Amino acid sequence: MDRLRIVLISPRNPLNIGAAARAISNFGFTHLRLVNPYGVAWREARSAVGASAVLERTQVFDSLAEALDDCTLVVGTTSIGHRELNHPLRRLEYGGRLLRKHLAAEPAALLFGSEKFGLSNEDLAHCHWLVRIPAREAHGSMNLGQAVAVCLYELIRDPRAAIAQPKALKPAAAGEVERFSALLLELLDSSGYTNPKTAASTAIKVRRMVRRLNLPGRDIETWQGILRQALWKSREPHRD
Amino acid sequence: MDRLRIVLISPRNPLNIGAAARAISNFGFTHLRLVNPYGVAWREARSAVGASAVLERTQVFDSLAEALDDCTLVVGTTSIGHRELNHPLRRLEYGGRLLRKHLAAEPAALLFGSEKFGLSNEDLAHCHWLVRIPAREAHGSMNLGQAVAVCLYELIRDPRAAIAQPKALKPAAAGEVERFSALLLELLDSSGYTNPKTAASTAIKVRRMVRRLNLPGRDIETWQGILRQALWKSREPHRD
Repeated sequence: MDRLRIVLISPRNPLNIGAAARAISNFGFTHLRLVNPYGVAWREARSAVGASAVLERTQVFDSLAEALDDCTLVVGTTSIGHRELNHPLRRLEYGGRLLRKHLAAEPAALLFGSEKFGLSNEDLAHCHWLVRIPAREAHGSMNLGQAVAVCLYELIRDPRAAIAQPKALKPAAAGEVERFSALLLELLDSSGYTNPKTAASTAIKVRRMVRRLNLPGRDIETWQGILRQALWKSREPHRD
Repeated sequence: MDRLRIVLISPRNPLNIGAAARAISNFGFTHLRLVNPYGVAWREARSAVGASAVLERTQVFDSLAEALDDCTLVVGTTSIGHRELNHPLRRLEYGGRLLRKHLAAEPAALLFGSEKFGLSNEDLAHCHWLVRIPAREAHGSMNLGQAVAVCLYELIRDPRAAIAQPKALKPAAAGEVERFSALLLELLDSSGYTNPKTAASTAIKVRRMVRRLNLPGRDIETWQGILRQALWKSREPHRD
């Protein structure tokens, strides 16, 4: 991740520069490079409260060529199907994989165009290929800070994590569940819910419903306590 | 995607509300719900230039319970390993899959806490489980707008797109490549690059180098033209 250079070309909004730096830090990247940032924007971003270590280390260049000097792969970003079809255009899911592979051994740059105009034809001429964030066509234009965050997330995303099973809640043992059912049936009886004529079928229905609750082992004693208390209260002689 | 309700709890920054709405629109979702937004923030977000259709449709609620009323699954978000371990905590890659599965049939809510405090214990009590954006531990706290964008991207992300092969550039045919090589060798000869004693081995070396270029079919004629022009110039009688 230390091999990726995130390059913002002519950013105009200090908040976007700050947001890009924040995402870079959140996802464990290091290198932010700015090409011809709007002067005020860069000064403001740098002096903002909580400006991160990433901003302190950010390098500023006069030309894109200088900013790319040490990179052996240059990837441009776009959220729209780009009018220029001179470049292979890859969806972020696939492009991210290729970029990650390259970064395993070699430095690479990921380019983001300005808020207003995106990457120019001159910028695109420096790119080996483009990635497209799969936003919907009718509203593909993304906020710069959000586009950076989404691209970096794809790079650190762990495909194996998508299939990892989480620890399920340990269910309560059958004995505990049965004690809970018995308490509940007692409560239904003492509170007048159960019709004596259909008591047997009610008991069966309630036992089934309780099983469907899949009560977790960690909660079963609390549930039993709640029922015991209600049961005690329901048996208290009525005052008025 | 129409079944997901994105719920922001007590957002304080109008830019974040706007950014959340923008990501919702970018990725094709519809429903933004705000619980107790800071009044000024909501008014500013709503009146901002370019406020989207999403903001116009945004619903505001006084309590989280009301905002969740029609949802059969409630998922909280966090970018840090949460102190409260009372909830199953799933990485976004896996949690996103579960949420997507649920959304195929039933409405669900995705909750984002306030910028300063995240989700409170009261908010968490409404959640079935939590997703964690895999930011690094040392700087896990994400910008709200970026967190929304990353979560929604994971939901619309197409795992099959990650393995789809892009159309490769069609390479030039061997005959075209050979014409290019011949022109290049002529140029090397006429410009005095080639040492006549080692001409044969130079030719072999250059042919190998040219093959390694993998010249694309679409560019080969342009490259030949460039060489022809240089060759013509190199044969022009010297003036001075």
